[in-house]
Amino acid sequence: MTPETSAHAWMARALRLARRGLYTTDPNPRVGCVLVNQDRLVGEGWHERAGEAHAEVHALQQAGDAARGATAYVTLEPCSHQGRTGPCAVALAEAGVARVVVAMQDPNPEVAGRGIDLLKEAGVAVEVGVLEEEARALNPGFISRMAQGRPHVRLKMAMSLDGRTAMRSGESQWITGPSARREVQRLRARSSAVLTGVESVIFDNSRLTVRPEQLELEQAECIARRQPLRVIVDSRLRLPLASACLCEAGRTLVFTVAGHDRERRAELEAAGAEVVEVAAEESGRVELAALLAYLATREAANEVLLETGATLAGAMFDAGLVDEMQLFVAQTLLGGEARPLFELPGMTRMDEQRPLQILDIRAVGEDWRITAVPRQRELSVSV
Amino acid sequence: MTPETSAHAWMARALRLARRGLYTTDPNPRVGCVLVNQDRLVGEGWHERAGEAHAEVHALQQAGDAARGATAYVTLEPCSHQGRTGPCAVALAEAGVARVVVAMQDPNPEVAGRGIDLLKEAGVAVEVGVLEEEARALNPGFISRMAQGRPHVRLKMAMSLDGRTAMRSGESQWITGPSARREVQRLRARSSAVLTGVESVIFDNSRLTVRPEQLELEQAECIARRQPLRVIVDSRLRLPLASACLCEAGRTLVFTVAGHDRERRAELEAAGAEVVEVAAEESGRVELAALLAYLATREAANEVLLETGATLAGAMFDAGLVDEMQLFVAQTLLGGEARPLFELPGMTRMDEQRPLQILDIRAVGEDWRITAVPRQRELSVSV
Repeated sequence: MTPETSAHAWMARALRLARRGLYTTDPNPRVGCVLVNQDRLVGEGWHERAGEAHAEVHALQQAGDAARGATAYVTLEPCSHQGRTGPCAVALAEAGVARVVVAMQDPNPEVAGRGIDLLKEAGVAVEVGVLEEEARALNPGFISRMAQGRPHVRLKMAMSLDGRTAMRSGESQWITGPSARREVQRLRARSSAVLTGVESVIFDNSRLTVRPEQLELEQAECIARRQPLRVIVDSRLRLPLASACLCEAGRTLVFTVAGHDRERRAELEAAGAEVVEVAAEESGRVELAALLAYLATREAANEVLLETGATLAGAMFDAGLVDEMQLFVAQTLLGGEARPLFELPGMTRMDEQRPLQILDIRAVGEDWRITAVPRQRELSVSV
Repeated sequence: MTPETSAHAWMARALRLARRGLYTTDPNPRVGCVLVNQDRLVGEGWHERAGEAHAEVHALQQAGDAARGATAYVTLEPCSHQGRTGPCAVALAEAGVARVVVAMQDPNPEVAGRGIDLLKEAGVAVEVGVLEEEARALNPGFISRMAQGRPHVRLKMAMSLDGRTAMRSGESQWITGPSARREVQRLRARSSAVLTGVESVIFDNSRLTVRPEQLELEQAECIARRQPLRVIVDSRLRLPLASACLCEAGRTLVFTVAGHDRERRAELEAAGAEVVEVAAEESGRVELAALLAYLATREAANEVLLETGATLAGAMFDAGLVDEMQLFVAQTLLGGEARPLFELPGMTRMDEQRPLQILDIRAVGEDWRITAVPRQRELSVSV
């Protein structure tokens, strides 16, 4: 192996370690660390849970004296702030680590580079950018929150091959099969919040929870102990007091606009909801960007899973607030009278279409899973 | 190689030869033949064009005396009828071929097995069923016509990821890119007929022809000399006399029901259409099964490419007349107001959904191509 492929291989190991925290580090990022001395692994670790030790601390503990002169591979720039064990950058330097290879800088523009500076000031060689893209893909929500002040929004929809999510009546159980539903449970489990519209809650009475028995993961019980925030867009405070989601473990936030009477609000709060007022759009509806900003800044939400119908999905999409789409496609037709995937009101011409980029298509049980992202809108050319 | 893998390999070669006739043998089947003597290829051939020699004749000519004692691998049972060169079964026996391996029997139930019987009576060893599935896949239309008296109907649609084929106005050029359009041209070129509804012709004024310059195939000019029949469902004889398709090379059949005035019919015929009256459904519309039966029996149509809108596509689907679907999916959204893929009137409950089976998904340029077939309708279970 050349030194370069060796660095990639060790960083890949650190990324795999980081991934073990996929369902548990929230609101912290997933981070892995590998310590290598003379081509030999001497320590490794990953961050498991907020409030517990960082990846670097685990790796240093394991390495002991072997950390002296070692190279550390870390998937995220070591922290420069005073945590319970001191800044990781200082800990690496004090342990005598000779070189630190970092996949990506801290995404928070206000602190980015400080950990690297601390290391350099202590005489440690630093290299940045090894497998950076892979490292970024591990923490899309944390990066979005730090860099843009809003969460990463992942829209999940289950549809027929002709792009329908439910019958006209709203009946939709079940378009997709158990494997797809397991994947949706896993998407919930990695998210800080599950976002939906009050219409969906009224119709489906969904619990919006992570069900450990459906995750099919080791430590599922442990993972499900952190329930994602349930976030309901409810401009007119129509949420039924008997909604199933209000009785579940974890918190339910109801986003509305100012001007409702105190009594209705008090009723909802007594039923278990936390009511949050945010800015209104001209239409009088909740301003979706304000809702997301609130989730990022006040609730430290990294990844938000949007599970909703065509209206809210379309509004989020057209507000530029959908970062990623996970479409679970069933091998079936529901016909032209069934409910559409997206309401995109006002689109009448082909040059107004909303281009996407499909990143991945794969089988999930009997269904297909399509990962797509919105693409910069381009004028299509009629030739 | 074991004898069995060897037989598979030779038959695979014969299938590849047969495939060379994909665009030209209509209305005959695509057939290939390989002659092997002591593990050595001594002759091969394929059927290229109706009225020209069969695959076996080409192979025998090439082999000459080496045919004596050889094994013939043929993708379809050798014919037993008197053609311009006599029955192929007799020719093989007379050339001294010792053994004939056949991929599949003749699909015509009235003559199936006669060629094999002729061979056996002449003392030739016969084996049937090697790579049968692959051989059947080469000639879905010929098999359907012979076995069921109707063509194989392949529905082609171009759609957005949310299952829309056009804007509400009908504007649809172009949802998919040039690679997908090339594939559609190739689908036309292999078909006996292109079937559409009069609405589509009125709106798009499509020519419904094979354009050699868009095929990107060797011998494209030669292929396009045979233009598929253009078939228009037009129950009320609304086809505009100035329709572009009436001026193209090849024939245009307009299917309607009885009862129209002679003048309108004469106008259309003067403009270049052939008007065909078939049975009407209760609704007064053309009975689609009768149309297909006509195409099979009177026009020897093997493969029919259905290129149409949601109404006729839905009617064909629900009549059980769609055998295969080719969906070209563009990476874009057209929204809930755009035109649907299928109108399936009266479907209101999930247990009425139309299950499909996806056989293949692949990238075609910037688009995706999905091959699917209708599945026996099953009651879905709500759990």
